[in-house]
Amino acid sequence: HSRRFMPFSKRVNHCVNPVAKKLLEIIEEKKTNLCVSADVTTTKELLELAEKVGPEICVLKTHMDIIKDFSGETACMLVGLAMKHNFLLLEDRKFADIGNTVKMQYTSGKFFISSWADLVTVHTISGPGVLQALKEAAFDANKPRGCVIIGELSSAGNLITADYSSASMVLAAEHFDFVSGFVSQNSLSSRPGLIHFTPGVSLGCNGDNLGQQYSDPDHVVTQRGSDVIIVGRGIIMDANPGEAARKYKEAAWAAYEKRLLA
Amino acid sequence: HSRRFMPFSKRVNHCVNPVAKKLLEIIEEKKTNLCVSADVTTTKELLELAEKVGPEICVLKTHMDIIKDFSGETACMLVGLAMKHNFLLLEDRKFADIGNTVKMQYTSGKFFISSWADLVTVHTISGPGVLQALKEAAFDANKPRGCVIIGELSSAGNLITADYSSASMVLAAEHFDFVSGFVSQNSLSSRPGLIHFTPGVSLGCNGDNLGQQYSDPDHVVTQRGSDVIIVGRGIIMDANPGEAARKYKEAAWAAYEKRLLA
Ligand SMILES: O=c1cc(CO)n([C@@H]2O[C@H](COP(=O)(O)O)[C@@H](O)[C@H]2O)c(=O)[nH]1
Ligand SMILES: O=c1cc(CO)n([C@@H]2O[C@H](COP(=O)(O)O)[C@@H](O)[C@H]2O)c(=O)[nH]1
Repeated sequence: HSRRFMPFSKRVNHCVNPVAKKLLEIIEEKKTNLCVSADVTTTKELLELAEKVGPEICVLKTHMDIIKDFSGETACMLVGLAMKHNFLLLEDRKFADIGNTVKMQYTSGKFFISSWADLVTVHTISGPGVLQALKEAAFDANKPRGCVIIGELSSAGNLITADYSSASMVLAAEHFDFVSGFVSQNSLSSRPGLIHFTPGVSLGCNGDNLGQQYSDPDHVVTQRGSDVIIVGRGIIMDANPGEAARKYKEAAWAAYEKRLLA
Repeated sequence: HSRRFMPFSKRVNHCVNPVAKKLLEIIEEKKTNLCVSADVTTTKELLELAEKVGPEICVLKTHMDIIKDFSGETACMLVGLAMKHNFLLLEDRKFADIGNTVKMQYTSGKFFISSWADLVTVHTISGPGVLQALKEAAFDANKPRGCVIIGELSSAGNLITADYSSASMVLAAEHFDFVSGFVSQNSLSSRPGLIHFTPGVSLGCNGDNLGQQYSDPDHVVTQRGSDVIIVGRGIIMDANPGEAARKYKEAAWAAYEKRLLA
Protein backbone atom coordinates (compact mmCIF):
# COMPACT_ATOMS: atom_id res chain seq x y z
CA HIS A 1 0.00 0.00 0.00
CA SER A 2 1.71 3.13 -1.20
CA ARG A 3 1.23 6.42 0.62
CA ARG A 4 0.35 8.41 -2.49
CA PHE A 5 -2.75 6.45 -3.43
CA MET A 6 -4.15 5.74 0.01
CA PRO A 7 -6.76 8.13 1.44
CA PHE A 8 -5.80 10.12 4.55
CA SER A 9 -8.59 8.31 6.43
CA LYS A 10 -6.83 4.95 5.94
CA ARG A 11 -3.34 6.26 6.55
CA VAL A 12 -4.33 7.21 10.11
CA ASN A 13 -3.92 3.56 11.08
CA HIS A 14 -0.33 3.47 9.86
CA CYS A 15 1.09 6.28 11.98
CA VAL A 16 3.69 5.45 14.58
CA ASN A 17 4.05 9.05 15.75
CA PRO A 18 0.92 10.33 17.56
CA VAL A 19 1.12 13.85 16.11
CA ALA A 20 1.15 12.47 12.56
CA LYS A 21 -2.00 10.53 13.44
CA LYS A 22 -3.69 13.56 14.93
CA LEU A 23 -2.78 15.61 11.86
CA LEU A 24 -4.26 13.07 9.44
CA GLU A 25 -7.44 13.08 11.53
CA ILE A 26 -7.67 16.86 11.31
CA ILE A 27 -6.98 16.81 7.56
CA GLU A 28 -9.77 14.29 7.05
CA GLU A 29 -12.21 16.05 9.34
CA LYS A 30 -11.69 19.57 7.97
CA LYS A 31 -10.96 18.38 4.43
CA THR A 32 -7.91 20.57 4.18
CA ASN A 33 -4.30 19.74 3.45
CA LEU A 34 -3.20 23.37 3.59
CA CYS A 35 -0.53 24.67 5.97
CA VAL A 36 -0.19 28.45 6.15
CA SER A 37 3.25 29.88 6.86
CA ALA A 38 2.63 32.78 9.25
CA ASP A 39 5.70 34.83 8.35
CA VAL A 40 4.60 38.04 10.02
CA THR A 41 6.56 40.05 12.55
CA THR A 42 4.15 41.05 15.33
CA THR A 43 1.92 39.14 17.74
CA LYS A 44 -1.09 41.13 16.57
CA GLU A 45 -0.58 40.19 12.92
CA LEU A 46 0.09 36.57 13.89
CA LEU A 47 -3.10 36.19 15.92
CA GLU A 48 -5.22 38.04 13.37
CA LEU A 49 -3.88 35.84 10.60
CA ALA A 50 -4.48 32.66 12.62
CA GLU A 51 -8.05 33.76 13.27
CA LYS A 52 -8.69 34.43 9.59
CA VAL A 53 -7.08 31.35 8.07
CA GLY A 54 -7.80 29.00 11.00
CA PRO A 55 -10.94 27.41 9.50
CA GLU A 56 -9.10 26.63 6.23
CA ILE A 57 -5.91 24.97 7.52
CA CYS A 58 -4.62 21.80 9.16
CA VAL A 59 -1.34 23.37 10.33
CA LEU A 60 -0.11 26.86 11.10
CA LYS A 61 3.64 27.15 10.57
CA THR A 62 5.55 29.78 12.54
CA HIS A 63 8.98 31.42 12.69
CA MET A 64 8.60 32.72 16.24
CA ASP A 65 12.03 34.33 16.16
CA ILE A 66 10.81 36.93 13.67
CA ILE A 67 8.00 38.10 15.98
CA LYS A 68 9.29 41.35 17.51
CA ASP A 69 7.06 41.29 20.58
CA PHE A 70 6.95 37.54 21.20
CA SER A 71 6.12 36.58 24.77
CA GLY A 72 4.60 33.65 26.60
CA GLU A 73 1.24 35.26 25.84
CA THR A 74 1.86 35.03 22.09
CA ALA A 75 2.30 31.28 22.32
CA CYS A 76 -0.59 30.92 24.75
CA MET A 77 -3.06 32.85 22.60
CA LEU A 78 -1.97 30.94 19.53
CA VAL A 79 -2.53 27.62 21.26
CA GLY A 80 -6.02 28.88 22.07
CA LEU A 81 -6.73 29.63 18.42
CA ALA A 82 -5.31 26.25 17.40
CA MET A 83 -7.82 24.60 19.75
CA LYS A 84 -10.68 26.80 18.63
CA HIS A 85 -10.11 26.12 14.92
CA ASN A 86 -8.62 22.63 15.26
CA PHE A 87 -5.21 22.99 13.66
CA LEU A 88 -1.68 22.04 14.75
CA LEU A 89 1.31 24.32 15.35
CA LEU A 90 4.56 23.73 13.51
CA GLU A 91 7.54 25.85 14.57
CA ASP A 92 9.82 25.98 11.55
CA ARG A 93 13.01 26.23 13.61
CA LYS A 94 15.14 24.13 11.28
CA PHE A 95 17.32 22.88 14.13
CA ALA A 96 20.80 22.40 12.68
CA ASP A 97 23.25 22.15 15.56
CA ILE A 98 24.80 19.41 17.70
CA GLY A 99 22.42 17.49 19.97
CA ASN A 100 23.35 19.23 23.20
CA THR A 101 22.70 22.69 21.75
CA VAL A 102 19.50 21.69 19.98
CA LYS A 103 18.09 20.28 23.20
CA MET A 104 18.51 23.67 24.87
CA GLN A 105 17.09 25.52 21.86
CA TYR A 106 14.01 23.27 21.86
CA THR A 107 13.20 23.45 25.54
CA SER A 108 14.71 26.64 26.91
CA GLY A 109 15.21 30.29 26.09
CA LYS A 110 12.64 32.85 25.05
CA PHE A 111 10.58 30.39 23.03
CA PHE A 112 10.35 27.20 25.13
CA ILE A 113 9.24 25.63 21.85
CA SER A 114 8.63 22.14 23.21
CA SER A 115 5.91 23.44 25.48
CA TRP A 116 3.60 24.76 22.73
CA ALA A 117 4.63 23.48 19.27
CA ASP A 118 3.12 20.15 18.21
CA LEU A 119 5.73 19.89 15.47
CA VAL A 120 9.18 21.31 14.74
CA THR A 121 11.35 21.17 11.63
CA VAL A 122 14.85 19.78 11.82
CA HIS A 123 17.83 19.47 9.48
CA THR A 124 19.58 16.10 9.71
CA ILE A 125 22.90 17.70 8.76
CA SER A 126 24.38 17.25 12.26
CA GLY A 127 23.66 13.53 12.33
CA PRO A 128 21.72 11.22 14.65
CA GLY A 129 22.39 13.18 17.86
CA VAL A 130 19.93 15.89 16.91
CA LEU A 131 16.94 13.55 16.56
CA GLN A 132 17.85 11.80 19.75
CA ALA A 133 18.18 15.11 21.59
CA LEU A 134 14.80 16.37 20.38
CA LYS A 135 13.12 13.08 21.19
CA GLU A 136 14.53 13.01 24.72
CA ALA A 137 13.42 16.59 25.26
CA ALA A 138 9.96 15.88 23.83
CA PHE A 139 9.64 12.94 26.17
CA ASP A 140 10.44 15.25 29.09
CA ALA A 141 7.78 17.70 27.87
CA ASN A 142 5.31 14.85 28.28
CA LYS A 143 2.97 15.96 25.48
CA PRO A 144 2.45 14.45 22.02
CA ARG A 145 5.29 15.86 19.95
CA GLY A 146 6.75 15.19 16.54
CA CYS A 147 9.42 16.43 14.19
CA VAL A 148 9.40 17.06 10.49
CA ILE A 149 12.72 16.36 8.79
CA ILE A 150 13.95 18.70 6.06
CA GLY A 151 14.55 16.09 3.37
CA GLU A 152 14.74 18.54 0.47
CA LEU A 153 14.68 22.32 0.08
CA SER A 154 12.78 24.59 -2.28
CA SER A 155 15.51 27.18 -2.83
CA ALA A 156 17.58 27.55 -6.00
CA GLY A 157 21.05 26.04 -5.87
CA ASN A 158 20.52 24.36 -2.50
CA LEU A 159 23.14 21.77 -1.54
CA ILE A 160 20.85 18.85 -0.67
CA THR A 161 21.69 15.83 -2.83
CA ALA A 162 19.86 12.56 -3.37
CA ASP A 163 22.44 10.90 -1.09
CA TYR A 164 21.75 13.45 1.64
CA SER A 165 18.00 12.83 1.38
CA SER A 166 18.53 9.06 1.59
CA ALA A 167 20.79 9.46 4.59
CA SER A 168 18.03 11.53 6.22
CA MET A 169 15.59 8.68 5.64
CA VAL A 170 17.97 6.27 7.35
CA LEU A 171 18.16 8.55 10.38
CA ALA A 172 14.37 8.95 10.37
CA ALA A 173 13.92 5.18 10.42
CA GLU A 174 15.55 5.00 13.84
CA HIS A 175 12.90 7.30 15.32
CA PHE A 176 9.55 6.60 13.65
CA ASP A 177 7.90 7.16 17.02
CA PHE A 178 9.05 10.78 16.85
CA VAL A 179 9.20 11.57 13.12
CA SER A 180 5.88 12.84 11.72
CA GLY A 181 7.14 13.31 8.19
CA PHE A 182 9.29 15.36 5.87
CA VAL A 183 9.54 18.74 4.27
CA SER A 184 10.34 17.89 0.69
CA GLN A 185 9.82 18.67 -2.98
CA ASN A 186 9.35 15.04 -4.00
CA SER A 187 8.11 11.80 -2.49
CA LEU A 188 10.82 10.47 -0.19
CA SER A 189 8.99 7.54 1.38
CA SER A 190 6.04 5.33 0.50
CA ARG A 191 5.20 4.66 4.16
CA PRO A 192 1.57 5.74 4.60
CA GLY A 193 2.15 6.91 8.18
CA LEU A 194 4.60 9.64 7.15
CA ILE A 195 3.39 13.03 5.96
CA HIS A 196 5.10 15.00 3.18
CA PHE A 197 4.93 18.80 3.54
CA THR A 198 5.87 20.90 0.50
CA PRO A 199 6.81 24.61 0.57
CA GLY A 200 7.48 26.72 -2.48
CA VAL A 201 3.83 26.80 -3.52
CA SER A 202 2.11 29.72 -5.21
CA LEU A 203 -0.80 30.22 -7.56
CA GLY A 204 0.70 33.36 -9.03
CA CYS A 205 4.51 33.62 -8.80
CA ASN A 206 7.50 31.63 -10.01
CA GLY A 207 9.93 32.80 -7.34
CA ASP A 208 11.27 35.69 -5.26
CA ASN A 209 14.56 37.58 -5.64
CA LEU A 210 16.40 35.56 -2.95
CA GLY A 211 16.18 32.08 -4.43
CA GLN A 212 12.69 30.84 -3.53
CA GLN A 213 11.13 28.69 -6.31
CA TYR A 214 7.37 28.12 -6.66
CA SER A 215 5.11 25.50 -8.20
CA ASP A 216 1.31 25.41 -8.09
CA PRO A 217 -0.71 23.24 -5.67
CA ASP A 218 -1.96 20.80 -8.30
CA HIS A 219 1.56 20.08 -9.52
CA VAL A 220 3.10 19.44 -6.11
CA VAL A 221 0.24 17.22 -4.93
CA THR A 222 -0.40 15.17 -8.08
CA GLN A 223 3.10 15.09 -9.62
CA ARG A 224 5.43 15.38 -6.65
CA GLY A 225 3.49 13.42 -4.09
CA SER A 226 3.01 16.18 -1.54
CA ASP A 227 0.44 15.60 1.21
CA VAL A 228 0.31 19.06 2.76
CA ILE A 229 1.17 22.24 0.87
CA ILE A 230 2.89 25.08 2.73
CA VAL A 231 1.94 28.56 1.55
CA GLY A 232 3.34 31.80 2.92
CA ARG A 233 3.35 34.98 0.85
CA GLY A 234 0.71 33.69 -1.57
CA ILE A 235 -1.76 33.95 1.32
CA ILE A 236 -0.37 36.34 3.91
CA MET A 237 0.36 39.14 1.41
CA ASP A 238 -3.13 38.86 -0.07
CA ALA A 239 -5.50 41.67 0.78
CA ASN A 240 -7.90 38.97 2.02
CA PRO A 241 -5.89 36.11 3.58
CA GLY A 242 -9.00 34.12 4.59
CA GLU A 243 -10.28 34.16 1.03
CA ALA A 244 -6.83 33.35 -0.40
CA ALA A 245 -6.47 30.44 2.04
CA ARG A 246 -9.81 29.07 0.91
CA LYS A 247 -8.60 29.19 -2.70
CA TYR A 248 -5.36 27.33 -1.91
CA LYS A 249 -7.22 24.84 0.27
CA GLU A 250 -9.64 24.01 -2.50
CA ALA A 251 -6.87 23.64 -5.09
CA ALA A 252 -4.81 21.34 -2.83
CA TRP A 253 -7.80 19.23 -1.83
CA ALA A 254 -8.97 18.83 -5.42
CA ALA A 255 -5.45 17.73 -6.35
CA TYR A 256 -5.46 15.19 -3.51
CA GLU A 257 -8.78 13.72 -4.68
CA LYS A 258 -7.48 13.59 -8.24
CA ARG A 259 -4.37 11.73 -7.06
CA LEU A 260 -6.47 9.09 -5.31
CA LEU A 261 -8.15 8.22 -8.61
CA ALA A 262 -4.87 7.86 -10.51
CA HIS B 1 51.59 32.21 0.87
CA SER B 2 49.58 29.65 2.74
CA ARG B 3 47.31 30.64 5.60
CA ARG B 4 48.62 28.02 8.02
CA PHE B 5 52.18 29.22 8.12
CA MET B 6 51.64 32.96 8.02
CA PRO B 7 51.47 34.90 11.29
CA PHE B 8 48.16 36.56 12.17
CA SER B 9 49.95 39.92 12.01
CA LYS B 10 50.68 39.44 8.29
CA ARG B 11 47.30 37.92 7.45
CA VAL B 12 45.60 41.16 8.48
CA ASN B 13 46.59 42.63 5.10
CA HIS B 14 44.85 39.84 3.21
CA CYS B 15 41.36 40.25 4.62
CA VAL B 16 38.60 41.35 2.29
CA ASN B 17 35.95 41.32 5.02
CA PRO B 18 36.46 44.08 7.62
CA VAL B 19 35.37 41.96 10.59
CA ALA B 20 37.94 39.29 9.73
CA LYS B 21 40.58 42.02 9.72
CA LYS B 22 39.41 43.39 13.04
CA LEU B 23 39.44 39.90 14.53
CA LEU B 24 43.02 39.20 13.40
CA GLU B 25 44.07 42.51 14.96
CA ILE B 26 42.46 41.57 18.25
CA ILE B 27 44.04 38.11 18.16
CA GLU B 28 47.46 39.63 17.61
CA GLU B 29 47.02 42.35 20.22
CA LYS B 30 45.66 40.12 22.99
CA LYS B 31 47.67 37.08 21.92
CA THR B 32 44.63 34.85 22.12
CA ASN B 33 42.98 32.64 19.54
CA LEU B 34 40.35 31.37 21.95
CA CYS B 35 36.60 31.74 21.40
CA VAL B 36 34.41 30.84 24.36
CA SER B 37 30.98 29.41 23.64
CA ALA B 38 28.67 31.03 26.21
CA ASP B 39 26.07 28.28 26.34
CA VAL B 40 24.32 29.49 29.49
CA THR B 41 20.63 30.16 29.90
CA THR B 42 20.27 33.45 31.78
CA THR B 43 21.45 37.01 31.19
CA LYS B 44 23.14 37.07 34.56
CA GLU B 45 25.23 33.99 33.82
CA LEU B 46 26.04 35.31 30.35
CA LEU B 47 27.31 38.66 31.58
CA GLU B 48 29.21 37.14 34.49
CA LEU B 49 30.88 34.67 32.17
CA ALA B 50 31.77 37.40 29.65
CA GLU B 51 33.30 39.47 32.43
CA LYS B 52 35.39 36.53 33.66
CA VAL B 53 36.64 35.18 30.35
CA GLY B 54 36.71 38.55 28.52
CA PRO B 55 40.45 39.20 28.99
CA GLU B 56 41.34 35.74 27.65
CA ILE B 57 39.30 35.63 24.43
CA CYS B 58 39.10 37.11 20.94
CA VAL B 59 35.46 36.10 20.37
CA LEU B 60 32.47 35.31 22.56
CA LYS B 61 30.07 32.96 20.83
CA THR B 62 26.40 33.05 21.85
CA HIS B 63 23.18 31.10 21.36
CA MET B 64 20.88 33.96 22.33
CA ASP B 65 17.78 31.82 21.83
CA ILE B 66 18.66 29.74 24.89
CA ILE B 67 18.75 32.80 27.20
CA LYS B 68 15.45 32.68 29.09
CA ASP B 69 15.34 36.37 29.99
CA PHE B 70 16.94 37.80 26.86
CA SER B 71 16.05 41.42 26.17
CA GLY B 72 17.56 44.39 24.38
CA GLU B 73 19.45 45.05 27.60
CA THR B 74 21.16 41.65 27.40
CA ALA B 75 22.61 42.50 24.01
CA CYS B 76 23.44 46.04 25.05
CA MET B 77 25.32 45.01 28.20
CA LEU B 78 27.18 42.34 26.27
CA VAL B 79 28.27 44.85 23.63
CA GLY B 80 29.58 46.98 26.51
CA LEU B 81 31.67 44.08 27.84
CA ALA B 82 32.92 43.33 24.31
CA MET B 83 34.18 46.90 24.07
CA LYS B 84 35.65 46.88 27.56
CA HIS B 85 37.60 43.64 27.02
CA ASN B 86 38.11 44.01 23.27
CA PHE B 87 36.48 40.89 21.86
CA LEU B 88 33.97 40.27 19.07
CA LEU B 89 30.48 38.77 19.31
CA LEU B 90 29.54 35.75 17.23
CA GLU B 91 25.90 34.69 17.30
CA ASP B 92 25.90 30.99 16.44
CA ARG B 93 22.49 31.09 14.74
CA LYS B 94 23.34 28.57 12.03
CA PHE B 95 20.93 30.17 9.57
CA ALA B 96 19.58 27.36 7.43
CA ASP B 97 16.47 28.61 5.64
CA ILE B 98 15.62 30.27 2.34
CA GLY B 99 16.96 33.81 1.81
CA ASN B 100 13.72 35.65 2.47
CA THR B 101 13.24 33.95 5.86
CA VAL B 102 16.88 34.29 6.91
CA LYS B 103 16.80 37.99 6.21
CA MET B 104 13.93 38.40 8.67
CA GLN B 105 15.61 36.16 11.25
CA TYR B 106 18.82 38.19 11.03
CA THR B 107 17.30 41.64 11.30
CA SER B 108 13.96 41.30 13.03
CA GLY B 109 12.23 39.53 15.89
CA LYS B 110 13.31 39.30 19.51
CA PHE B 111 17.02 39.20 18.72
CA PHE B 112 17.60 41.84 15.99
CA ILE B 113 20.91 40.00 15.57
CA SER B 114 22.32 42.24 12.86
CA SER B 115 22.30 45.20 15.23
CA TRP B 116 24.71 43.72 17.80
CA ALA B 117 26.51 40.61 16.47
CA ASP B 118 29.76 41.24 14.59
CA LEU B 119 29.59 37.72 13.21
CA VAL B 120 26.93 35.07 12.60
CA THR B 121 27.20 31.42 11.58
CA VAL B 122 25.39 30.18 8.50
CA HIS B 123 24.78 26.83 6.84
CA THR B 124 25.12 26.94 3.05
CA ILE B 125 22.58 24.13 2.69
CA SER B 126 19.89 26.45 1.21
CA GLY B 127 22.20 27.72 -1.53
CA PRO B 128 23.41 31.16 -2.61
CA GLY B 129 20.26 33.05 -1.60
CA VAL B 130 21.11 32.84 2.08
CA LEU B 131 24.49 34.58 1.76
CA GLN B 132 23.02 37.20 -0.47
CA ALA B 133 20.15 37.80 1.97
CA LEU B 134 22.49 38.17 4.95
CA LYS B 135 24.83 40.45 3.03
CA GLU B 136 22.00 42.71 1.92
CA ALA B 137 20.70 42.89 5.48
CA ALA B 138 24.18 43.58 6.86
CA PHE B 139 24.59 46.38 4.37
CA ASP B 140 21.34 47.89 5.61
CA ALA B 141 22.59 47.62 9.20
CA ASN B 142 25.46 49.84 8.10
CA LYS B 143 28.01 48.39 10.55
CA PRO B 144 30.98 46.11 9.86
CA ARG B 145 29.47 42.63 9.69
CA GLY B 146 30.65 39.21 8.64
CA CYS B 147 29.48 35.64 8.42
CA VAL B 148 31.17 32.39 9.29
CA ILE B 149 30.17 29.50 7.05
CA ILE B 150 29.65 26.06 8.57
CA GLY B 151 31.98 24.10 6.28
CA GLU B 152 32.19 21.01 8.49
CA LEU B 153 30.58 19.84 11.73
CA SER B 154 32.02 18.27 14.86
CA SER B 155 29.19 15.86 15.59
CA ALA B 156 29.30 12.10 15.05
CA GLY B 157 27.62 10.84 11.90
CA ASN B 158 26.98 14.32 10.51
CA LEU B 159 25.96 14.43 6.85
CA ILE B 160 28.49 16.98 5.55
CA THR B 161 30.58 15.44 2.76
CA ALA B 162 33.74 16.67 1.04
CA ASP B 163 31.57 17.69 -1.92
CA TYR B 164 29.31 19.71 0.35
CA SER B 165 32.31 21.50 1.88
CA SER B 166 33.69 22.29 -1.59
CA ALA B 167 30.33 23.61 -2.73
CA SER B 168 30.30 25.85 0.36
CA MET B 169 33.69 27.23 -0.66
CA VAL B 170 32.35 28.05 -4.10
CA LEU B 171 29.45 29.97 -2.55
CA ALA B 172 31.84 31.74 -0.19
CA ALA B 173 33.99 32.87 -3.10
CA GLU B 174 31.13 34.97 -4.42
CA HIS B 175 31.00 36.98 -1.20
CA PHE B 176 34.53 37.41 0.18
CA ASP B 177 33.56 40.91 1.23
CA PHE B 178 31.08 39.37 3.67
CA VAL B 179 32.60 35.98 4.58
CA SER B 180 34.99 36.15 7.53
CA GLY B 181 35.80 32.46 7.56
CA PHE B 182 34.58 28.97 8.33
CA VAL B 183 33.60 26.71 11.16
CA SER B 184 35.41 23.52 10.31
CA GLN B 185 37.35 20.54 11.56
CA ASN B 186 40.02 20.74 8.83
CA SER B 187 41.65 23.38 6.68
CA LEU B 188 39.22 24.28 3.91
CA SER B 189 41.07 27.19 2.31
CA SER B 190 44.63 28.42 2.12
CA ARG B 191 43.57 32.06 1.71
CA PRO B 192 45.27 33.98 4.54
CA GLY B 193 42.37 36.40 4.90
CA LEU B 194 39.91 33.70 5.94
CA ILE B 195 39.69 32.51 9.55
CA HIS B 196 39.05 28.89 10.51
CA PHE B 197 37.10 28.38 13.74
CA THR B 198 37.05 24.89 15.26
CA PRO B 199 34.56 23.61 17.86
CA GLY B 200 34.69 20.22 19.51
CA VAL B 201 37.70 21.15 21.63
CA SER B 202 38.35 19.89 25.16
CA LEU B 203 41.34 19.24 27.35
CA GLY B 204 39.55 16.53 29.29
CA CYS B 205 36.71 14.78 27.42
CA ASN B 206 36.31 12.75 24.25
CA GLY B 207 32.64 13.53 23.69
CA ASP B 208 29.18 13.93 25.21
CA ASN B 209 26.21 11.54 25.05
CA LEU B 210 24.51 13.37 22.15
CA GLY B 211 27.17 13.04 19.47
CA GLN B 212 29.68 15.81 20.24
CA GLN B 213 33.30 14.76 19.51
CA TYR B 214 36.33 16.45 21.09
CA SER B 215 40.01 16.89 20.25
CA ASP B 216 42.59 18.88 22.21
CA PRO B 217 43.73 22.40 21.29
CA ASP B 218 47.20 21.39 20.14
CA HIS B 219 45.83 18.80 17.74
CA VAL B 220 43.24 21.05 16.08
CA VAL B 221 45.65 23.97 15.67
CA THR B 222 48.79 22.12 14.57
CA GLN B 223 47.29 19.12 12.74
CA ARG B 224 43.94 20.39 11.48
CA GLY B 225 44.87 23.95 10.66
CA SER B 226 42.45 25.68 13.02
CA ASP B 227 43.01 29.39 13.70
CA VAL B 228 40.54 29.94 16.53
CA ILE B 229 39.42 27.20 18.88
CA ILE B 230 35.83 27.24 20.17
CA VAL B 231 35.39 25.91 23.70
CA GLY B 232 32.10 25.61 25.54
CA ARG B 233 31.64 23.14 28.37
CA GLY B 234 35.38 22.72 28.93
CA ILE B 235 35.36 26.29 30.24
CA ILE B 236 31.83 27.21 31.27
CA MET B 237 31.30 24.11 33.41
CA ASP B 238 34.61 24.66 35.20
CA ALA B 239 34.38 25.91 38.78
CA ASN B 240 36.68 28.75 37.69
CA PRO B 241 35.90 29.72 34.08
CA GLY B 242 38.44 32.57 34.01
CA GLU B 243 41.22 30.21 35.04
CA ALA B 244 40.05 27.50 32.62
CA ALA B 245 39.91 30.04 29.77
CA ARG B 246 43.49 31.06 30.53
CA LYS B 247 44.57 27.43 30.28
CA TYR B 248 42.85 26.92 26.91
CA LYS B 249 44.17 30.24 25.64
CA GLU B 250 47.72 29.29 26.49
CA ALA B 251 47.42 25.86 24.90
CA ALA B 252 45.93 27.27 21.69
CA TRP B 253 48.47 30.08 21.43
CA ALA B 254 51.41 27.74 22.03
CA ALA B 255 50.06 25.47 19.30
CA TYR B 256 49.78 28.46 16.94
CA GLU B 257 53.40 29.45 17.60
CA LYS B 258 54.49 25.87 17.08
CA ARG B 259 52.66 25.74 13.75
CA LEU B 260 54.43 28.87 12.51
CA LEU B 261 57.79 27.14 12.97
CA ALA B 262 56.78 24.01 11.06
O1 LIG C 1 12.51 24.15 1.57
C1 LIG C 1 11.87 24.96 2.24
C2 LIG C 1 11.48 24.69 3.56
C3 LIG C 1 10.66 25.60 4.23
C4 LIG C 1 9.97 25.21 5.46
O2 LIG C 1 10.68 24.35 6.30
N1 LIG C 1 10.39 26.84 3.65
C5 LIG C 1 9.64 27.84 4.43
O3 LIG C 1 8.34 27.90 3.90
C6 LIG C 1 7.86 29.25 3.85
C7 LIG C 1 7.59 29.60 2.40
O4 LIG C 1 7.08 30.88 2.32
P1 LIG C 1 6.60 31.53 0.94
O5 LIG C 1 5.41 30.72 0.46
O6 LIG C 1 6.26 32.92 1.32
O7 LIG C 1 7.77 31.47 -0.03
C8 LIG C 1 8.92 30.10 4.53
O8 LIG C 1 8.56 30.26 5.90
C9 LIG C 1 10.19 29.26 4.43
O9 LIG C 1 11.06 29.48 5.53
C10 LIG C 1 10.74 27.06 2.33
O10 LIG C 1 10.38 28.10 1.73
N2 LIG C 1 11.48 26.14 1.67
O1 LIG D 1 30.37 21.73 14.30
C1 LIG D 1 30.04 22.43 15.28
C2 LIG D 1 29.72 23.79 15.14
C3 LIG D 1 29.47 24.53 16.29
C4 LIG D 1 29.48 26.00 16.23
O2 LIG D 1 28.97 26.55 15.07
N1 LIG D 1 29.35 23.89 17.52
C5 LIG D 1 28.94 24.69 18.71
O3 LIG D 1 30.09 24.87 19.51
C6 LIG D 1 29.77 24.75 20.89
C7 LIG D 1 30.56 23.58 21.45
O4 LIG D 1 30.33 23.48 22.82
P1 LIG D 1 31.07 22.39 23.73
O5 LIG D 1 32.55 22.79 23.74
O6 LIG D 1 30.41 22.57 25.04
O7 LIG D 1 30.84 21.05 23.14
C8 LIG D 1 28.27 24.60 20.97
O8 LIG D 1 27.70 25.89 21.19
C9 LIG D 1 27.87 24.08 19.60
O9 LIG D 1 26.58 24.52 19.22
C10 LIG D 1 29.70 22.58 17.63
O10 LIG D 1 29.78 22.00 18.73
N2 LIG D 1 30.01 21.86 16.51
